[in-house]
Amino acid sequence: MNAEHLVDVIRGDNVESEHWGHIAVVNSEGKLLYSKGNPNRVTFARSSMKPLQAIPIVETGAADHYQFNQADLSLACASHNGENQHTDRVKTILSRLGLGTDDLKCGTHPPRWTEAYEALIIAGKEITPEYNNCSGKHSGMLTTAIHMGESLEDYYKTDHPVQKRIMEVISDISETPLNEIEIGIDGCGVPVHGIPLKNLALSFAKMAKPISFPEKRKNAIEQVTAAMMAAPEMVGGTNRFCSDFMRIEDGRMFGKAGAEGVYCIGDLETGLGIAIKIEDGNGRATSPVAVEVLKQLDLLNEKQIKLLHDYHYPKLKNARQEVVGQLSPIFSLKNA
Amino acid sequence: MNAEHLVDVIRGDNVESEHWGHIAVVNSEGKLLYSKGNPNRVTFARSSMKPLQAIPIVETGAADHYQFNQADLSLACASHNGENQHTDRVKTILSRLGLGTDDLKCGTHPPRWTEAYEALIIAGKEITPEYNNCSGKHSGMLTTAIHMGESLEDYYKTDHPVQKRIMEVISDISETPLNEIEIGIDGCGVPVHGIPLKNLALSFAKMAKPISFPEKRKNAIEQVTAAMMAAPEMVGGTNRFCSDFMRIEDGRMFGKAGAEGVYCIGDLETGLGIAIKIEDGNGRATSPVAVEVLKQLDLLNEKQIKLLHDYHYPKLKNARQEVVGQLSPIFSLKNA
Repeated sequence: MNAEHLVDVIRGDNVESEHWGHIAVVNSEGKLLYSKGNPNRVTFARSSMKPLQAIPIVETGAADHYQFNQADLSLACASHNGENQHTDRVKTILSRLGLGTDDLKCGTHPPRWTEAYEALIIAGKEITPEYNNCSGKHSGMLTTAIHMGESLEDYYKTDHPVQKRIMEVISDISETPLNEIEIGIDGCGVPVHGIPLKNLALSFAKMAKPISFPEKRKNAIEQVTAAMMAAPEMVGGTNRFCSDFMRIEDGRMFGKAGAEGVYCIGDLETGLGIAIKIEDGNGRATSPVAVEVLKQLDLLNEKQIKLLHDYHYPKLKNARQEVVGQLSPIFSLKNA
Repeated sequence: MNAEHLVDVIRGDNVESEHWGHIAVVNSEGKLLYSKGNPNRVTFARSSMKPLQAIPIVETGAADHYQFNQADLSLACASHNGENQHTDRVKTILSRLGLGTDDLKCGTHPPRWTEAYEALIIAGKEITPEYNNCSGKHSGMLTTAIHMGESLEDYYKTDHPVQKRIMEVISDISETPLNEIEIGIDGCGVPVHGIPLKNLALSFAKMAKPISFPEKRKNAIEQVTAAMMAAPEMVGGTNRFCSDFMRIEDGRMFGKAGAEGVYCIGDLETGLGIAIKIEDGNGRATSPVAVEVLKQLDLLNEKQIKLLHDYHYPKLKNARQEVVGQLSPIFSLKNA
């Protein structure tokens, strides 16, 4: 799909592997400022869409009614580690709804956070849905459904009002007609949305500078992005790029990873939106590309670049914990 | 590196990601018969080199002296799951040497086999080196070192006789001058070897049909490849492509995966060698490419292709265990 060479994987003195991909940098008026590869590539946003998927929780009044604080709303945008700080909060949200973790339809997978996984095994407990990295999003969907008096057992299906409301939000913010949004099924069972990469970047630009929206939507967007930046530990967790990146950004930028090599960032100060897709789907290449784009756009200062060094140039270590290589971004953004 | 498009990752009706890469098909006289991408791409063979790395165990007489059976020799070529069948055998080999698992210098990582990992955690045991997928190879290296009266604590270093012996074997079989072999450090601390992809294919072709070698080397090669095919469960383990592929091959072909998207096959009947490198390093694309190459070369019958279907077109499942997509090979081999 006309990808360009973005990252080298270096072992010893040799390039062992290469990651190619696509970048779109767009302003909030929809002007494509910089690109690599094909900015029109139709891309499943996967979990990078979660900040948009969280907007109806606020817009419907569900967030207010069920007393969502910033950490709750941030968790609704999360692909979390399954640490206690995440799973405890999911259970708290569900208990406010009068629901339990069995009501989550996201399925189960072992928690990403090894300590949480090992604690479950030692306790002889089965892996329950709150450990799914998407359980915050699903809790948010349940919150909206219960607040609107909608059915709860099928909230994950494409034709449920919860999902239709999300589709309308995505169509509006990304400026993509409803019938042009490609639909697949995500790792957690809900619809995923495929739109051109530049429209994904535009979504983040417009969320960063939501001046074109009616007051209610503008307010909901601002609440979501403020929540992510105020409680970045909810969005990913310990040693996760999303969390560490937003922790050092001082409330200026919000970023969200998506499976299969997607990363999106919105910058409140410039109103820029950035969308990245690694063509081969490997998430290891996203943080080097993201930090490099921010560096080239002069959106990070020296100190921040230094703090993000291990995400910018991730080390390859072997089982003896020796450094045997690293990932290196190798591209220059060109004007679109 | 002039890769070509080999595999689509499909979600719903859309291509979500693409894998590009390189293929070389060579006969045992070194003629490049088919290729995709760049057959001259210098490629770290990683664990695909293990069958060659096992040859000195036989050639030095160590295998005979320490009573290696076919399963032991196959395990020396393994990237195993860390199942009991693997770790018990590693410990048995080491006990014959009068050594223990602490003598393995491969470092540790959690066993790939979930049951083994969970059993360790429940027992409160630390992860010891025999669970490293390379512990069979390291046991083989120790066997050679002890048999030759060489030092044991540094057998993994590039200038140790064990590694120099392996370098000579690789140079000979791959027809690559010693000073042209690129060296890096592998995930388990020993040298990895970078050679052009077509030389990697040639190595497997010449191992499949080792007629050009002196009797001693020919015999060692035949013992190694026969061992892999006689005890394929040692090479990977349960639900692993290498093992399942060799299990249905009836002693005709041997195959070995390497990290960062490498796969190599030798066919005893035709003397063909096949080497595959996925440019982005993602191992998920290797089995679709390998099975498709074998199908296009007419090296598999209908029944075998059917048995390998889930490796040829791997399904993508979500956390709800629903099938949401699949990988599909999309290339046609062309004459080189």
